[in-house]
Amino acid sequence: MKETGIKELRSYIEQAMRACGLTEENAGTVADVFIRATLRGVGHHDIYDFLPRVQWLREGKAVPNPVYRLQAAFGGVESYDAGNGLGELGCSFGMERAMQLAEEHGIGLCALRNTNHFLAAAPYVERAAEKGFIGLLLCKGGVSMGAPGRPGACMSALPMGFAYPTDGIYPVMLDACMAYASFGQLQMRAKKGEPVPEWWGLDKEGKPTADPMKLAQGTRFPIGGHKGFGLAMLGEVLTSVLSQGCILDEKETGDGLQNWSAHTAIAIKADALMDIGAFKKRAGTLSRRSEARAPGLHIPGMGSWKAREAFTGKGAFSLEDELCEKLDQIAGELNIPKLSK
Amino acid sequence: MKETGIKELRSYIEQAMRACGLTEENAGTVADVFIRATLRGVGHHDIYDFLPRVQWLREGKAVPNPVYRLQAAFGGVESYDAGNGLGELGCSFGMERAMQLAEEHGIGLCALRNTNHFLAAAPYVERAAEKGFIGLLLCKGGVSMGAPGRPGACMSALPMGFAYPTDGIYPVMLDACMAYASFGQLQMRAKKGEPVPEWWGLDKEGKPTADPMKLAQGTRFPIGGHKGFGLAMLGEVLTSVLSQGCILDEKETGDGLQNWSAHTAIAIKADALMDIGAFKKRAGTLSRRSEARAPGLHIPGMGSWKAREAFTGKGAFSLEDELCEKLDQIAGELNIPKLSK
Repeated sequence: MKETGIKELRSYIEQAMRACGLTEENAGTVADVFIRATLRGVGHHDIYDFLPRVQWLREGKAVPNPVYRLQAAFGGVESYDAGNGLGELGCSFGMERAMQLAEEHGIGLCALRNTNHFLAAAPYVERAAEKGFIGLLLCKGGVSMGAPGRPGACMSALPMGFAYPTDGIYPVMLDACMAYASFGQLQMRAKKGEPVPEWWGLDKEGKPTADPMKLAQGTRFPIGGHKGFGLAMLGEVLTSVLSQGCILDEKETGDGLQNWSAHTAIAIKADALMDIGAFKKRAGTLSRRSEARAPGLHIPGMGSWKAREAFTGKGAFSLEDELCEKLDQIAGELNIPKLSK
Repeated sequence: MKETGIKELRSYIEQAMRACGLTEENAGTVADVFIRATLRGVGHHDIYDFLPRVQWLREGKAVPNPVYRLQAAFGGVESYDAGNGLGELGCSFGMERAMQLAEEHGIGLCALRNTNHFLAAAPYVERAAEKGFIGLLLCKGGVSMGAPGRPGACMSALPMGFAYPTDGIYPVMLDACMAYASFGQLQMRAKKGEPVPEWWGLDKEGKPTADPMKLAQGTRFPIGGHKGFGLAMLGEVLTSVLSQGCILDEKETGDGLQNWSAHTAIAIKADALMDIGAFKKRAGTLSRRSEARAPGLHIPGMGSWKAREAFTGKGAFSLEDELCEKLDQIAGELNIPKLSK
């Protein structure tokens, strides 16, 4: 593991994105998403997923500085074609736009098609909570989740997240998908040699498995069976359908769409119905009353906050050697300073 | 089992509610909720839960014809005190109001405090889908769900439901809570002698159990562990906090509130961003593409539709003798005609 300064990593990402053609503002936005995600300390869906972005941009698969084209609007609801830019840019735009709509209508929804992988929901909903909104971000993922009890993928796992402000020291925040485990989580378990419960899904032969990698290659089940499956379907409608994007495994809509990714941001103005202090206090009361009944309870968002405190305390992340080598290699190719001293 | 005409049951409910002091309109609304719920064929959260309503009204615990008092409003977001009426009335009002707000703002949210048990989410979201909305209804339940892996209830299970219209023969619809099983589901399993998976929760001694009744008396776990727990917390904020209601296990707010129940209805105008035909076609495409990958797939809402077809085909429900006897007994007490001929 190598200690890597947070500031240095942010600067590295900005320079890499600038070298890939992004404007200073867009490069800063992408860096902010990656730093926020990495500060959660999860070890996947963060800086460990940075290299594909560079690759997509260099290969022309994603547009460095996308133009957002309004497709339809009605009151607090809008849909955009996100111009095949990085998901980090599209979702930043979408969450910002949802907040602007919520400023006017109390609640706002912005659906985006033609985006790319958004990394994780947490960075966007965390920003929303910091600005006084209940933020919700939904992602149309690949078709990677099965129906309860049967082999074969037939639904997106709906990567999603929400956050809301409280009077505590951190926002309540969840970043999850509707399968029992994300692929990142399965890879982590495999690395640590940890098995998975056999009811999490099937291997590619359709048999229950405790092996995380066999599960990743097979069928992941939705949480709570039909419950998670239904929630994922709702998510697919709110993203794919409302954004005029590709439905489930469609790969094109025939109208110039370049990328099947779609995301939808929803924001509720936390002080729409009471002053912000009252909202935060009451939202905090929920955490406190729950903790009072279950001392030591892990409140969603607590882990992210603890990790952030630890990283910002020492001003650095501990990154795996393999990742650092790859980041340095890319730096050489992009002709920007290496991370390693 | 006794065959009971659907029309006759509707008329019975209306007359019972009229005898309890409800206006004709309110009695009709309550009957519509119970008939819609019973047409789902679930066998719980339907006519089998009718008797408590009569009891609450006769004992003065619920108000027959509640007055809805607007507490706060901003754009498409409103909160009301629902006047301690039946949940069937409060949630009908709330869903209707959310749809009116969505007609104006594209998306609408109506939070209600001081309601009562809403029976189930399905009747309200089904109405919304019939009227061209994506309908979502959230319920602040009792504190009956545990945190992942530990004994003791510390969160509501968030009974909720959604529905959206499609170009198929039924709306996609889910009615569920964020615990692995509702109490109704556990009672059904107990009646049939079916065990539950041991990972669904703990008995009251804090040990895993396969006995549905021991689980009902113990701690039910959230679906997907921290995922379902987080979603339930979000639901509690959207209901209890936004409605100015009781948080978690609070029993009063000190401002004249009579009942800790709270519900929030959210409606999205399905034709806000495209014409309704396009929305329905694309939403239906999702079901069809999913089914194409998983032939025979159970789409959420399919079971309700099949049950409804069967019941309306013969014009009658099959109700348990014990229920019919109780309904007749109540009829005698309310001085209305008995259901049985």
